[in-house]
Amino acid sequence: MSTVSAPPKSLMKPMVFPQKLMMGPGPSNCPPRVLNACAMPILGHLHPEFTQIMDEVKEGVKYMFQTKNEWTVCVSGTGHAAMETACCNLLESGETTLVCCNGLWGERFSDMALRNGAVVKRIERPMGEVFTLGEIEEGLRKYCPSVLFITHGESSGSTLQPLEGIGALCHKYNCLLLVDSVAACGGVPMYMDKWEIDVLYTGSQKVLSAPPGASPISFSPKAKAKVQGRKTKIRSWYFDMNELANYWGCDDGPRRYHHTGPINCVYALREGLARLAEEGLEKSWANHRHCVEELWEGIEKMGLQLLVKDKANRLPCVTGVKVPNGVNWKEVSDYAMKNHRVEISGGLGQQAGKIWRIGIMGYNATPDNVRRVLRALDDALKFTRGQASSKL
Amino acid sequence: MSTVSAPPKSLMKPMVFPQKLMMGPGPSNCPPRVLNACAMPILGHLHPEFTQIMDEVKEGVKYMFQTKNEWTVCVSGTGHAAMETACCNLLESGETTLVCCNGLWGERFSDMALRNGAVVKRIERPMGEVFTLGEIEEGLRKYCPSVLFITHGESSGSTLQPLEGIGALCHKYNCLLLVDSVAACGGVPMYMDKWEIDVLYTGSQKVLSAPPGASPISFSPKAKAKVQGRKTKIRSWYFDMNELANYWGCDDGPRRYHHTGPINCVYALREGLARLAEEGLEKSWANHRHCVEELWEGIEKMGLQLLVKDKANRLPCVTGVKVPNGVNWKEVSDYAMKNHRVEISGGLGQQAGKIWRIGIMGYNATPDNVRRVLRALDDALKFTRGQASSKL
Repeated sequence: MSTVSAPPKSLMKPMVFPQKLMMGPGPSNCPPRVLNACAMPILGHLHPEFTQIMDEVKEGVKYMFQTKNEWTVCVSGTGHAAMETACCNLLESGETTLVCCNGLWGERFSDMALRNGAVVKRIERPMGEVFTLGEIEEGLRKYCPSVLFITHGESSGSTLQPLEGIGALCHKYNCLLLVDSVAACGGVPMYMDKWEIDVLYTGSQKVLSAPPGASPISFSPKAKAKVQGRKTKIRSWYFDMNELANYWGCDDGPRRYHHTGPINCVYALREGLARLAEEGLEKSWANHRHCVEELWEGIEKMGLQLLVKDKANRLPCVTGVKVPNGVNWKEVSDYAMKNHRVEISGGLGQQAGKIWRIGIMGYNATPDNVRRVLRALDDALKFTRGQASSKL
Repeated sequence: MSTVSAPPKSLMKPMVFPQKLMMGPGPSNCPPRVLNACAMPILGHLHPEFTQIMDEVKEGVKYMFQTKNEWTVCVSGTGHAAMETACCNLLESGETTLVCCNGLWGERFSDMALRNGAVVKRIERPMGEVFTLGEIEEGLRKYCPSVLFITHGESSGSTLQPLEGIGALCHKYNCLLLVDSVAACGGVPMYMDKWEIDVLYTGSQKVLSAPPGASPISFSPKAKAKVQGRKTKIRSWYFDMNELANYWGCDDGPRRYHHTGPINCVYALREGLARLAEEGLEKSWANHRHCVEELWEGIEKMGLQLLVKDKANRLPCVTGVKVPNGVNWKEVSDYAMKNHRVEISGGLGQQAGKIWRIGIMGYNATPDNVRRVLRALDDALKFTRGQASSKL
């Protein structure tokens, strides 16, 4: 007689995968070559063929970030894992961090920093607005933080934070600059070294159009020195940059077994980076710009308003569109998914229910997709408005 | 003129994937259906089709672990991420943990617990030996720990720790039992609930034969109560079980956006769990046993010795084979890879250079693969011994 419980029936049926056009703030669709890379045979986490792929990924990330930093690796987790890596390596208990908070990512980083024993000070702007150099300098002067956190592409408020000058300001006040560029990097200009950014990370499932699971991060020589000069041990073992840097071949020692990396995700990320390298950064930036201009124009033609007024502060990768009075955002979004198989996402936090968010990233950044999402939105709006008036 | 550095040339060539038979301690080879699952189209991390797959994964993990625990999820990282999740959720600063250390995993857990501010006490056995109930009870009495850590399948020493009775002992001393079964679960009997295990985790790339990237973990009601009754916040945001349990639909609330899961890794894990459910746990356990008996016999016929003397304490999934005097382990291992495309791994820590480790796990657990690894080992030994005598 069996001593084990019966196997679950739900596992005896095949999985179902509808094709969707993922025009939300991510994950975005992956091209066939990236998905095919996921399905390549597994290699050992220290086999030479795999460490070569890791080296290629490093080169690709350095190119994407425009940096020469030695400590450039991927964290074995999704974007939030990279944020936690930055946080727990840079901050020691009792140190002060200044968080520029204009959306969800600032909130999240504040939470992580508190868990790491840091003192969190904040300067705040509503979602949809960005920070000026003056505001940042005032914060630096007032709080004397060790680390300043700022979000490049705030996907919750659809803002693009201008970064030029912030690094120099931070360094003037003996502070390191940490930038979250999960929802922007690859789609807009980024010059990590020139802009004096000390720690920068991104995700794989946005402009790189690879599945989530491995997240690029880079530390400047100053940031590396801070980590290596810590008085206390890094609270996380899995995210310890000293170990990750060794595993990624960033020091002179032989690679040690730290953990088993997410091997097939690294293959996919490598293909995503190869696509970006083949296209070229400047063409990618220009293409995102070109597509989003068409999106903005189309949205305004439909009589809708964008959340961010100043064009210069709009994130090309994720656009916030105000939900008109009397319209239920979810009915529109559900209609677009059901009838067009197009994802249009809602808002988060303060903007929940008030905006839609439309993503144009990487593989999905084509004029054809822009037209498709505009058609879906227009059709959905007409339908829900028709429904609403027929109820009167 | 371009303002960016040139794209790296290394990304302009296709990747190379040699076919290898991965008979080390993991990752093991993935079957085509699992790799194909990796390449399925991406879904949103909160789309209903994806949360259904997550539910199926949960059912599969409960079956594999033989548990009814509500808090059964996957961590969005590899096996070490699951270890860190167990550690940082269960232990608060100043609490004592008793680590049963007979190899690498006990060392790693000790390191993580110290980083989390815990007091670490240890009982130790050399690699290749296991703990008795008497030794464990003595430790519990002496140190009054809140959490006892023990490794089920110690892949570094190739031991299988008998677990029956340890849970009841721990509970008698008001201590929770935490078990690492990364290298054992699915290949040997496991009854989480019957054996009163409080936290259990495993990896995807061992018996489940899926790529690394998402790791199953389960918390008993007692362990859940300890996490929910903490006086201090969990130090990690990414690994916070309160959040992970919500994301995996283990509480009554609607699923919140905590982080983007490793979507395609979850597809693959689901297929690995489906394979196990279709075969049935007892058949899988019997098959691993059957294959490893053939391996042990073949190795002894070659005049080699196994590291673990007592059959009852040998891990069927990973076998430690002593390197004979005068033989260089690496020459043998390299020869097997070069001429047979078969991976045979070396030892770690105290056993580095002294043993080979041969893995028989999941998809790779077939009599044919056992014969292939035996042939490769035999051939490599003959070659290196011939080389050695020709040098005399």
